[in-house]
Amino acid sequence: MSDHRIAIIGGTGDQGKGLALRWARAGFSIIVGSRDAERADSAAAEMRGTLGGEVLIEGAVNSVAAASAPIIVLTVPFAAQIATMKDIRESLAPGSLLIDVTVPLEPAVGGKPTRMLGVWAGSAAEQCAELAPENVQVVSAFHNVGAEALSRLAHEVECDVIVCGDSKDAKELVRPLVAAIPGCRYVDGGPLANSRTVEAITALLIGLNVRYKTHVGIRITGVK
Amino acid sequence: MSDHRIAIIGGTGDQGKGLALRWARAGFSIIVGSRDAERADSAAAEMRGTLGGEVLIEGAVNSVAAASAPIIVLTVPFAAQIATMKDIRESLAPGSLLIDVTVPLEPAVGGKPTRMLGVWAGSAAEQCAELAPENVQVVSAFHNVGAEALSRLAHEVECDVIVCGDSKDAKELVRPLVAAIPGCRYVDGGPLANSRTVEAITALLIGLNVRYKTHVGIRITGVK
Repeated sequence: MSDHRIAIIGGTGDQGKGLALRWARAGFSIIVGSRDAERADSAAAEMRGTLGGEVLIEGAVNSVAAASAPIIVLTVPFAAQIATMKDIRESLAPGSLLIDVTVPLEPAVGGKPTRMLGVWAGSAAEQCAELAPENVQVVSAFHNVGAEALSRLAHEVECDVIVCGDSKDAKELVRPLVAAIPGCRYVDGGPLANSRTVEAITALLIGLNVRYKTHVGIRITGVK
Repeated sequence: MSDHRIAIIGGTGDQGKGLALRWARAGFSIIVGSRDAERADSAAAEMRGTLGGEVLIEGAVNSVAAASAPIIVLTVPFAAQIATMKDIRESLAPGSLLIDVTVPLEPAVGGKPTRMLGVWAGSAAEQCAELAPENVQVVSAFHNVGAEALSRLAHEVECDVIVCGDSKDAKELVRPLVAAIPGCRYVDGGPLANSRTVEAITALLIGLNVRYKTHVGIRITGVK
């Protein structure tokens, strides 16, 4: 499996599509996963149409997508995270990297996107790690990068990507994926438990989007 | 009482001193509060020495300081927040503004400054509001501005100040205090409950300081 192959589970959602477009344009080979193979195929076709040219985007059901790449990105709504992990966990190849992008926003239970749910594991990322096989490394990233900013392909994404994980080496594997998105910058956010805060920042940014009628991002100052 | 008068409760700590120096230099009249009047006086004298010239900084015990200004800033360690609020609450004048800067970092119980404590009220700011008299408005701000950055008076503080509170008018009173610190920018962070996230960002930034051997801050992009 090529290192340039990325499976995006829940890749038919706005965040998944935005990441798929950016990475495909940067030369990665993308497998868009969905619960429904037809939806995955049609999302992939739509994205090929958007980008034109020689981009590599195909569709597959989530479990097939999860088995077909060394890097798997989970971009499902929080309400679907546990079921999706149960669905794909047997398909994840030993040694693969799982990047969790899930944010436990309140809409999962009918609430507001500016508010968070408490997660017993501490964060969506830690919940994901509990559900992942032991031989798969879990990191979290890309929570704060807005789908809207990703989809505006002519514009840079003015946002740092704070990457959390318990293995420095695993986190480093995310660096080229961040570098592939113009305007994004990799920031080592520390252990996976710090994802609690990075996930919560998403809700804060959504509130700022509403309050300032714009699309905000985050930068860490003082980091070279 | 002049609007240009600010009491800093716990003003002998690093964060309190840093804010006192910046605001005194900008022309505010500062009352540095401490549990101990002598410590307050000597911190005030030290700061007058640092700044020289016609700055207005005096010391007082916390309860006296709290009674002597329309704006009261709480910069005590989390372990001292409840006791301090009980000590000063009767002294707070009706209609005054209390700005909570407290962060529930784990060192309050012997842990790490990169980790947070859970607070039953939701955040230190909400705990502060529970303890404040009803006729005093509570907002939270300045959590993410490092004491080190504040103390380096020749340098701008590269950090947005995310202000949380349930009254827009009360939050607006913080705007001139933010503007008085070169490099800082006011960002309306929404309701007081959002302080949960803004406080947690402090622990994240402390971890980044350690990891990157620097002094970091935060910026929200896309906000004019």
